[in-house]
Amino acid sequence: MPDTSLLEGFATPTDSPFVIEHIVEEFTSVCPKTGHPDFGVVTIRFEPRAASAGGICVELKSLKLYMQSFRNEGIYYEAVTNAIRDDLAAFMKPAWLAVRTDWKGRGGIRSVIRAESGQVPPVWKV
Amino acid sequence: MPDTSLLEGFATPTDSPFVIEHIVEEFTSVCPKTGHPDFGVVTIRFEPRAASAGGICVELKSLKLYMQSFRNEGIYYEAVTNAIRDDLAAFMKPAWLAVRTDWKGRGGIRSVIRAESGQVPPVWKV
Amino acid sequence: MPDTSLLEGFATPTDSPFVIEHIVEEFTSVCPKTGHPDFGVVTIRFEPRAASAGGICVELKSLKLYMQSFRNEGIYYEAVTNAIRDDLAAFMKPAWLAVRTDWKGRGGIRSVIRAESGQVPPVWKV
Amino acid sequence: MPDTSLLEGFATPTDSPFVIEHIVEEFTSVCPKTGHPDFGVVTIRFEPRAASAGGICVELKSLKLYMQSFRNEGIYYEAVTNAIRDDLAAFMKPAWLAVRTDWKGRGGIRSVIRAESGQVPPVWKV
Amino acid sequence: MPDTSLLEGFATPTDSPFVIEHIVEEFTSVCPKTGHPDFGVVTIRFEPRAASAGGICVELKSLKLYMQSFRNEGIYYEAVTNAIRDDLAAFMKPAWLAVRTDWKGRGGIRSVIRAESGQVPPVWKV
Amino acid sequence: MPDTSLLEGFATPTDSPFVIEHIVEEFTSVCPKTGHPDFGVVTIRFEPRAASAGGICVELKSLKLYMQSFRNEGIYYEAVTNAIRDDLAAFMKPAWLAVRTDWKGRGGIRSVIRAESGQVPPVWKV
Amino acid sequence: MPDTSLLEGFATPTDSPFVIEHIVEEFTSVCPKTGHPDFGVVTIRFEPRAASAGGICVELKSLKLYMQSFRNEGIYYEAVTNAIRDDLAAFMKPAWLAVRTDWKGRGGIRSVIRAESGQVPPVWKV
Amino acid sequence: MPDTSLLEGFATPTDSPFVIEHIVEEFTSVCPKTGHPDFGVVTIRFEPRAASAGGICVELKSLKLYMQSFRNEGIYYEAVTNAIRDDLAAFMKPAWLAVRTDWKGRGGIRSVIRAESGQVPPVWKV
Amino acid sequence: MPDTSLLEGFATPTDSPFVIEHIVEEFTSVCPKTGHPDFGVVTIRFEPRAASAGGICVELKSLKLYMQSFRNEGIYYEAVTNAIRDDLAAFMKPAWLAVRTDWKGRGGIRSVIRAESGQVPPVWKV
Amino acid sequence: MPDTSLLEGFATPTDSPFVIEHIVEEFTSVCPKTGHPDFGVVTIRFEPRAASAGGICVELKSLKLYMQSFRNEGIYYEAVTNAIRDDLAAFMKPAWLAVRTDWKGRGGIRSVIRAESGQVPPVWKV
Repeated sequence: MPDTSLLEGFATPTDSPFVIEHIVEEFTSVCPKTGHPDFGVVTIRFEPRAASAGGICVELKSLKLYMQSFRNEGIYYEAVTNAIRDDLAAFMKPAWLAVRTDWKGRGGIRSVIRAESGQVPPVWKV
Repeated sequence: MPDTSLLEGFATPTDSPFVIEHIVEEFTSVCPKTGHPDFGVVTIRFEPRAASAGGICVELKSLKLYMQSFRNEGIYYEAVTNAIRDDLAAFMKPAWLAVRTDWKGRGGIRSVIRAESGQVPPVWKV
Repeated sequence: MPDTSLLEGFATPTDSPFVIEHIVEEFTSVCPKTGHPDFGVVTIRFEPRAASAGGICVELKSLKLYMQSFRNEGIYYEAVTNAIRDDLAAFMKPAWLAVRTDWKGRGGIRSVIRAESGQVPPVWKV
Repeated sequence: MPDTSLLEGFATPTDSPFVIEHIVEEFTSVCPKTGHPDFGVVTIRFEPRAASAGGICVELKSLKLYMQSFRNEGIYYEAVTNAIRDDLAAFMKPAWLAVRTDWKGRGGIRSVIRAESGQVPPVWKV
Repeated sequence: MPDTSLLEGFATPTDSPFVIEHIVEEFTSVCPKTGHPDFGVVTIRFEPRAASAGGICVELKSLKLYMQSFRNEGIYYEAVTNAIRDDLAAFMKPAWLAVRTDWKGRGGIRSVIRAESGQVPPVWKV
Repeated sequence: MPDTSLLEGFATPTDSPFVIEHIVEEFTSVCPKTGHPDFGVVTIRFEPRAASAGGICVELKSLKLYMQSFRNEGIYYEAVTNAIRDDLAAFMKPAWLAVRTDWKGRGGIRSVIRAESGQVPPVWKV
Repeated sequence: MPDTSLLEGFATPTDSPFVIEHIVEEFTSVCPKTGHPDFGVVTIRFEPRAASAGGICVELKSLKLYMQSFRNEGIYYEAVTNAIRDDLAAFMKPAWLAVRTDWKGRGGIRSVIRAESGQVPPVWKV
Repeated sequence: MPDTSLLEGFATPTDSPFVIEHIVEEFTSVCPKTGHPDFGVVTIRFEPRAASAGGICVELKSLKLYMQSFRNEGIYYEAVTNAIRDDLAAFMKPAWLAVRTDWKGRGGIRSVIRAESGQVPPVWKV
Repeated sequence: MPDTSLLEGFATPTDSPFVIEHIVEEFTSVCPKTGHPDFGVVTIRFEPRAASAGGICVELKSLKLYMQSFRNEGIYYEAVTNAIRDDLAAFMKPAWLAVRTDWKGRGGIRSVIRAESGQVPPVWKV
Repeated sequence: MPDTSLLEGFATPTDSPFVIEHIVEEFTSVCPKTGHPDFGVVTIRFEPRAASAGGICVELKSLKLYMQSFRNEGIYYEAVTNAIRDDLAAFMKPAWLAVRTDWKGRGGIRSVIRAESGQVPPVWKV
């Protein structure tokens, strides 16, 4: 199972406006229907809760391990996207957070799923 | 005839904001005038009706079979685009849905057709 | 002379929101000053007048012949762009129409001309 | 069945060295195993038999119709490539001929098949 | 010195909305500090004053000669950009005008300068 | 362990010159040192043993399953490349075979490994 | 330590609207955790305080030396971005300033950090 | 008719090895069958006859006018290519000359025609 | 000083033909004349000495540390390239080795340096 | 006049095989016929005479100044190319030297000129 206990954070270093984006270029999980692997790119963009409000940012190495915990998981595109959104929103409680997953094509169709938490300003929608 | 009975769905998994995009890169139908094949890319983007409102999302394999049902159909660009918009809007009753078809060039002119169902937010117009 | 009698139309097939774009990738006319040929790409984007309002859409083959009627015409970039805007607006009476011409460079300067008819929504400006 | 009776030719116009390449960018056939459509690009490169030796070159429109005759054929990648090589070699009896088919990916694997007829000079191998 | 006397114009041909963009891809001047040549691309975008208001548009060949008059001028990036903005705004009195200069890198830093005259609509900012 | 029992073949369909290339774009294995996943592209190019010599070609679906059997294997770049070369050469006994693996970067270094079996003609080296 | 004493400025040359962007393509610092070098691109975009308000713009060579002062500094992505934002905002007191850092990938994840000072107009957000 | 009287030359300036390539990016002629315009790129590459052997090179402006003389000519791809090869070989008597024409697609097929005069070294084949 | 004591190796795993390429995308050293940093890409391609001849291959992590040892070294492009060639040839005694360094531009000139050790087959020259 | 007195050299640092390439991306001279500036990219590739034979390599900064000395020179494409070849061959007496000039288009035709000194190995021809 995707393992949220792997996530670690550090205190937001400032109260000034600040947007962080991590692009996980080598995401893989397993299709629960066919058992074949799925490959995609996961983009996470968020404005951390301000330092003065006790905000935290996800630490990069821990994010990588969390992402790797999906490797042998049988899980659909939509569920991956929602899980990441929910897990990171719960962990960081950011001002807003947007997740985008771009999946490699299967049978001539490729898919993009976007999920959001909080009020994502239009200019920052992924 | 394009066959809507091929479409299958699954329940929207969440009430959180959520956008799905499927890019059908290998669409082909037949020009009703010349009998020559047309080739294009069909992009479908929608926000599913929320889970709590009984929303459903189109299942990917069934979408592929529905798209293949156009293969030997004599049908114009605009009619393809409107048919897909109408069929998917009727099937899913989404919050909004946008369809874009990008057609390979013929005689030095290539075309793009965009159709919408519901109020598509500007930032999500295809 | 550019020949508007070549233009043919078909009835707009729907009242739903609908945007059509034709990209004429092989446009050529002649510079009236130097007599040398000009080459460019002409992009036409419009929302047809709705079916219930008696709207029509330009037919693709007739558009191609109309575009070819500029081939040996001595005419400036701006005049080409305005002529296409005016001719198509008069022929289709669309909800709005935008024309963009991208000209190949001459002497290290390339030009883009954009003309509009009606209220083009910002998101659809070419 | 692929229909060689559609092929038409014209006499090679010269005895000077001469290489012709046609790139068929919108080829489609059907996988005999799954029934799903396959999409690819077919490149044909050849040196026609010289004019003085009674050489002929395939006519472009007839080549297009011949290629379209594969549209609903259940046939493997290798068989498509060999059939085109054999049909065109038999029809034109060229000095040499090379065929390359580039297939869109399926399940994360894409394939390229190359077949030759006669002694293709290294510099002209596709 | 940049020579505005080289600029020539022609009467705006219409009162309809109209945007002109000239991209000067081979601009060069000289760094006043080091004496080394600077190279860049200059993009000029404007809406001419309407025909009925006596508007004029800069003529392309004269624009080229004006741009060449910077060739051996010792002048900074910002001054080039402002000079072009001021000279063209004074010459054409356009509805609005935007200038963008993209400079080739020096020492691993490349720069873009944007200057505006009048109220440039957001969608047309360069 | 990489599982060669997954490989299936079909008889080479011809004695004419023939080159097959399969590009496996979504290969993944595990670094035996760090336990982190490796991602790469595996290209296999070969000339099958001729039909009259009892040649066989690897079947595409079986190749995919064989490639997936590396997914959770702790194995180095060089060993992956040699294993694929050795397994496919033993299975098909082709006229020649070349394998190329392109690995995604780690710490700013990316690697390409090429291995060959038999006399690969220079023009066909991967 | 990043050395703000290296920064030099020149007086804003105009009161007209004016945006400056410097793209530092060869930024490098050191990861404080692993001691390995980090590489990225730093983009700085700002509207200088107007000439009549005593505005100054950072001089390009001094900016380069300031950027080089990070070369052997052990410092995180976020801290680099905030430091540059704070140092340049303090030095120039611009109308607004936006900083974007694009970091080369590590372990399959690459990051983008954006920080702002003042009210950055949506159209100019980096 | 293509007009060879437009061609002008200048004396080869040296006896040292020397290769010239002109890429005519905006070639157009007319299909003799359909009357529709054809568009393509013509590449001419040659080693001029040495200065001491009385060699000449085609002058660039005259080459442009010669190319424009095809504009309203009804002529096939192969005939264009052979005509250019023959006309330039007769005019310059070069050590060798190669002509390549790349034609924009028609009905999903695009073509490349290559013709040579004299012994073109493999490394210089177009 | 570049530190060859950092280099570690592993035994060549096979006697079959085998080519290894490492592309170090984030190389940096310092210009001994100006003190400014240089940035480049270093490509190393070699055929290891065969297993049966006691061949060794450079280990990837050790190669990275060796490359980082140039970070604050004042050294010219040519010397970097020769040093890497000489150090790796001495360390691995490969069948052949080729080094290519691609340097980012300075003052509008960028450079590529290639050095070789042993008889590099033409097809494998970098 | 192009000024060869600007060229400076340094002693070839080794007797091992060694190829140097400098790509001058911002070359400009003046067309002697029209007076308009020409822009191009000059690529110089050479194998220096060996250290033990007293070889020298052109110094980069001096090469830049030499290239800038063409800035206001009225000179044709071919003459630029031959001048650079002759000047550098005379200055360095390299094992071989190749010069390639790529000129920006004029009137839809762009040109490439290649000149050589000594026996350039096929694999190193520019």
